[in-house]
Amino acid sequence: MKESLDFIYKEQKELSTFGGIAALLGWDQMTHMPKMGAAERSEQGALISRLSHDKVISDNFWKHIQILLKNLDNLSEKDKAVVTRLVKDVEKSRKIPSDFVERMSRTTTLSYQSWEDARAKNDFKVFAPHLGKIINLEKEYCDYIKLPGPKYNTLLDDYEEGMTVDVLKKEFSFLKTNLVDILQKIMSSETYSKQEKIDIKVDKEKQKKLSQIIFEKMHLPNEKARIDVSTHPFTTSIGIDDVRITTNYDRDSPLFSFFSTIHEAGHALYELGMPGEEFKYTVISDSPSLGLHESQSRFWENNIARSMSFWKYFYSIFQNTSGYSYSNLDNWYKLINQVRPSLIRVEADELTYCLHVILRFELEVDLMDDKIKVDDLPQLWNEKMNDMFGIIPKNDVEGLLQDMHWSGGSIGYFPTYAIGSIYSSQIHKKISEVNANLETEIEQGNFQNILNWLRENIHKFGRLMTADEIIKNACGEGFNSKIFVDYLKNKYFSLYGV
Amino acid sequence: MKESLDFIYKEQKELSTFGGIAALLGWDQMTHMPKMGAAERSEQGALISRLSHDKVISDNFWKHIQILLKNLDNLSEKDKAVVTRLVKDVEKSRKIPSDFVERMSRTTTLSYQSWEDARAKNDFKVFAPHLGKIINLEKEYCDYIKLPGPKYNTLLDDYEEGMTVDVLKKEFSFLKTNLVDILQKIMSSETYSKQEKIDIKVDKEKQKKLSQIIFEKMHLPNEKARIDVSTHPFTTSIGIDDVRITTNYDRDSPLFSFFSTIHEAGHALYELGMPGEEFKYTVISDSPSLGLHESQSRFWENNIARSMSFWKYFYSIFQNTSGYSYSNLDNWYKLINQVRPSLIRVEADELTYCLHVILRFELEVDLMDDKIKVDDLPQLWNEKMNDMFGIIPKNDVEGLLQDMHWSGGSIGYFPTYAIGSIYSSQIHKKISEVNANLETEIEQGNFQNILNWLRENIHKFGRLMTADEIIKNACGEGFNSKIFVDYLKNKYFSLYGV
Repeated sequence: MKESLDFIYKEQKELSTFGGIAALLGWDQMTHMPKMGAAERSEQGALISRLSHDKVISDNFWKHIQILLKNLDNLSEKDKAVVTRLVKDVEKSRKIPSDFVERMSRTTTLSYQSWEDARAKNDFKVFAPHLGKIINLEKEYCDYIKLPGPKYNTLLDDYEEGMTVDVLKKEFSFLKTNLVDILQKIMSSETYSKQEKIDIKVDKEKQKKLSQIIFEKMHLPNEKARIDVSTHPFTTSIGIDDVRITTNYDRDSPLFSFFSTIHEAGHALYELGMPGEEFKYTVISDSPSLGLHESQSRFWENNIARSMSFWKYFYSIFQNTSGYSYSNLDNWYKLINQVRPSLIRVEADELTYCLHVILRFELEVDLMDDKIKVDDLPQLWNEKMNDMFGIIPKNDVEGLLQDMHWSGGSIGYFPTYAIGSIYSSQIHKKISEVNANLETEIEQGNFQNILNWLRENIHKFGRLMTADEIIKNACGEGFNSKIFVDYLKNKYFSLYGV
Repeated sequence: MKESLDFIYKEQKELSTFGGIAALLGWDQMTHMPKMGAAERSEQGALISRLSHDKVISDNFWKHIQILLKNLDNLSEKDKAVVTRLVKDVEKSRKIPSDFVERMSRTTTLSYQSWEDARAKNDFKVFAPHLGKIINLEKEYCDYIKLPGPKYNTLLDDYEEGMTVDVLKKEFSFLKTNLVDILQKIMSSETYSKQEKIDIKVDKEKQKKLSQIIFEKMHLPNEKARIDVSTHPFTTSIGIDDVRITTNYDRDSPLFSFFSTIHEAGHALYELGMPGEEFKYTVISDSPSLGLHESQSRFWENNIARSMSFWKYFYSIFQNTSGYSYSNLDNWYKLINQVRPSLIRVEADELTYCLHVILRFELEVDLMDDKIKVDDLPQLWNEKMNDMFGIIPKNDVEGLLQDMHWSGGSIGYFPTYAIGSIYSSQIHKKISEVNANLETEIEQGNFQNILNWLRENIHKFGRLMTADEIIKNACGEGFNSKIFVDYLKNKYFSLYGV
C-alpha cells in the first residue's frame, strides 16, 4: 500500500509537471512565438500530450490505483480524497481509445484551419463539413463514456461535472425569459433612447499602466504572476507559483483591456488559491468545473468592477492614469454599464451576455440529439438572434463563425460561461450578507476581505467537492439562476429607471 | 535495415522536439518567468532532460544503430553521415552512468546558488568548496570518457570536438605574447594617453529601436526570430524556424545592447542556416563546435560592426535613431574601438578579450592536472591579471567570481570564445579575398553577399565535418591564431598610430 501510494503521488507530480510544460508551450504560442514556429510547436505540444496521456492510462498506474481503492478504509482522509478523485479521472481516460484521441486531434487541427479560412472568406459553408466531422466524433466520444440521459450530458460532464441537460434547460429557460423581458423593458426606456455609443480612446502605454495598477490592487503578486498580450485574453498556470494572464490593448475601447484584465485576474487568483502544501501536485489541486472558474472571473469583472462602489474608488485613478476624463462619476457608471443588443458574444454587456450563451447551448443540444443538422445552423442562428435580440447578423463572421470553440471540438463548453455568471451572483449575494462593510471596503479599494472569503469558501477546496457542492456549502444553496436574475433586475432597472 | 532507419529518424525527431521544449523552458526562465516559478521550472527542465537522456541511452536505440553500423556500406550518403555522427554521440552518452548525471545536476544546482551567495558576500571562500566538488566530478567524468592525453582534452572535446590542450597551449601562447605586446604598444601611445572614457546615454526605447533596425538589416526575419531582454544576452533555438536572441538595455552604455544584439544575431543566423530539408531533426542539424558558433557572432560583432565601413553606413542611422550625436565619424570609430585593460571579461574590448579567456584556460588546465588547488585561485588570478593587464581586481566579484561558468560545471568552455575570435578573423580574411566589393557593400548596408557566403561555406554543413575541417574547407587552412594577430595589428596599430 505504501508502494502504491508513493507511486500514485510520483505519477501525479509528473503529470502536473507535464501540465505546466504544456501550459508554457501554449502560452508562448499565443503571446511571443514567431509565426513560423507554429508547425514545430504543434509537434512539441503533441509529444507532451501523448506522454501525459500514456501515463494516465498505463496499466501500472491503474493497478496501483486499484490496490488503494480496495484499501480505501485504511487510508488517511487526504489519501482517500486523492484516490477517490483519481479513480474517476483515470477510469474516464481509459475508456477512450488512443486512436480516437489521435483522430480527434487531427480533425480539430484541420477544422481550426478551415474555421480561419471560412472567416477569411466570410462563408460558413467552408467550415460546415469539418463541423459535421467534429459532431460525429463527439457522438463517438459520448458512446465510449455513456453517461445516463442525452448524449450532451457526457460532454457537459467534462467541463461541469454532474451538470445535466435537464437542469440547464430548466435554469436557462427561466433565465432567457427574464433576460429578454429585462432587455425589452430597458429598450423601451427613455434613458435607452438617449444613450450614446461608447467612444473612448486611451493610448496603449496608459492602458498597460491601468492594467498593472488593478492587477496589483487585486493582490496578484508580481513574483508569481504576470500580464502579457494575446489576441484573445486568457489565463494559464505554468506552475503553482507561476500564473499568467493576457489582455489586448488594441481593441476599440480601452475598457476592453481594463475589464478583461480584471476578468483574467479573477481566474488567476483562483489558480493561486488552490489547496496548498497538502494537495499540491495532486488531482485535487484544480478547479472542479469551468463554471466555478468562470464565477471567479465574472465576480471580479462584473459584481465588483462594474459596481458604483468600485468606481467611487477607481474613477479618479482611471482618469489620472489614462488622461481621459468624462463628465462625472454618475454618467461614467452608466456608460460602462450600458446595455445594447449586439451580435458578438465577447463584446456583449453583462445583461445580454448570457443570451448569447443560451443560443449556442440550444443549438448544441439539438445537434447532438440529431434534431437539427449542421446545414440548418445559419438559418437557426438568425432566427434565435431575432427572437432574443431583435437583430440578425449581416454575415457569417458576425454570426456563427465568431467563436473558435466548435472548431476545437469544445461542444458543451459555452454553458459554463453562463453558469459562471449565475454562481458569481450567488457568491456576491453571500459576501454582501456576511460583510456589512463590503461597499465601504470597495469604495476604499480594499479587496482583502473579499479575497479572504473567496480563499476560505471557494478556492481552498480545489476538487474536494463538486462546484455545486462548494456553492451550496459557501452560499447556502446550489446552482440557482433566480439570484442572478434578481441581481440584474435590481441593478439595471435602477440604471434605466424602469 | 528499413525498420532501423525509420526508428533512428523517429527517435532523433523526438530528441529534437525535447530539445526545443527544453530551450523554451530555459528561454522563458531567463526572460519572462515570475521569480517564484523557479522551483517548479527546475522540475520541468529535469523531467525533459531525463526523458531525453533515457531515450539516447536506451538499449533499443543502440541496437538499431548497431544494425545500421554493420550495414554502413549499403546506406545512402545521407544515412551514412547521420549514422556515423549518431554512433559517436550515443556511445559517449552511454559511457556516463545515470547516477553521475543526477549527482552532477544536483551539485551544479547547489553550486550555482553558492556562487550567487558568494557574489552577494563578495567572498570566493563561500564558493570554493562547491567548485572543489565540481572539479572532482569533472575528473570522474573524464575517467568515464577517457580521451588520450590530459584529462582536460575530454572536457574540451564536448565543446570543441577534436581540440586538444597541446594545440591550444601552442596557439594561445603565441596569441598571448602578441596580445600583451600589442596592448603595451597601444598603452605607450599618445592617442591612448589622451583617450576619454565612453560616456553615452540613450534611453531604452531608442536602444530597442536600434536593436530592431540592425536585427532586420542582418536579414533576421521577424516570422522566425525575435529579441527579448535578459540579464545576460543569449541565443536559443526553440525550433528550426523559431530562434530567439536576448539583449539588455540597462547597462552603462547603449553600445552594450547594440553590439550584443549584433553578436547574438550572428548566432541566430547560424541557427537558421543549419542544413535544411534533408537533415532537419537529425544530429547533423547542429553546430560542430561552440568555437565555430562563436565565430559567427564575433564575425558580425567585431569584423563587420566595429569596422569603419560599417559606420560609414550606420553612423547617421545611429545618430538619428538614438538622438545622440558625436563630434564626427572618425572620432566615433575610435571611440567604439577603444582599448583599455579591464577587469571584467564581458566588458572587454576586441583586443584584450582573449587575454581574459587565456587566463581562465591556464587555470582550468592546471586545476584538472592537479598542479594547482581551488584555494590557490585568488592569488593566481591576481598574478595573471597583473602579468597580462597590469591591473588586479579589488575584490572577488571583480575577479574570479565574475563568471557563472564554473558553477554550472562548464570547465573547458571558455577557450571556445577565443577559438571563435580566431576563426572569425580567418573567415573575414577569406571573405575579403573572394569579394572585392566587400567594403563597398558594407558601406551601403548590403550584407546579403556576406550572409550568402556564410550560408554556403559554414552554415550548411551542420555537423557533416568538424569545425576545423569546415574552416579548412572554407578558408584554405585550419585553426590559425596568426591570422587573428595580423588582423588585430593591422587594425589597432593604425587606430593608435603605433
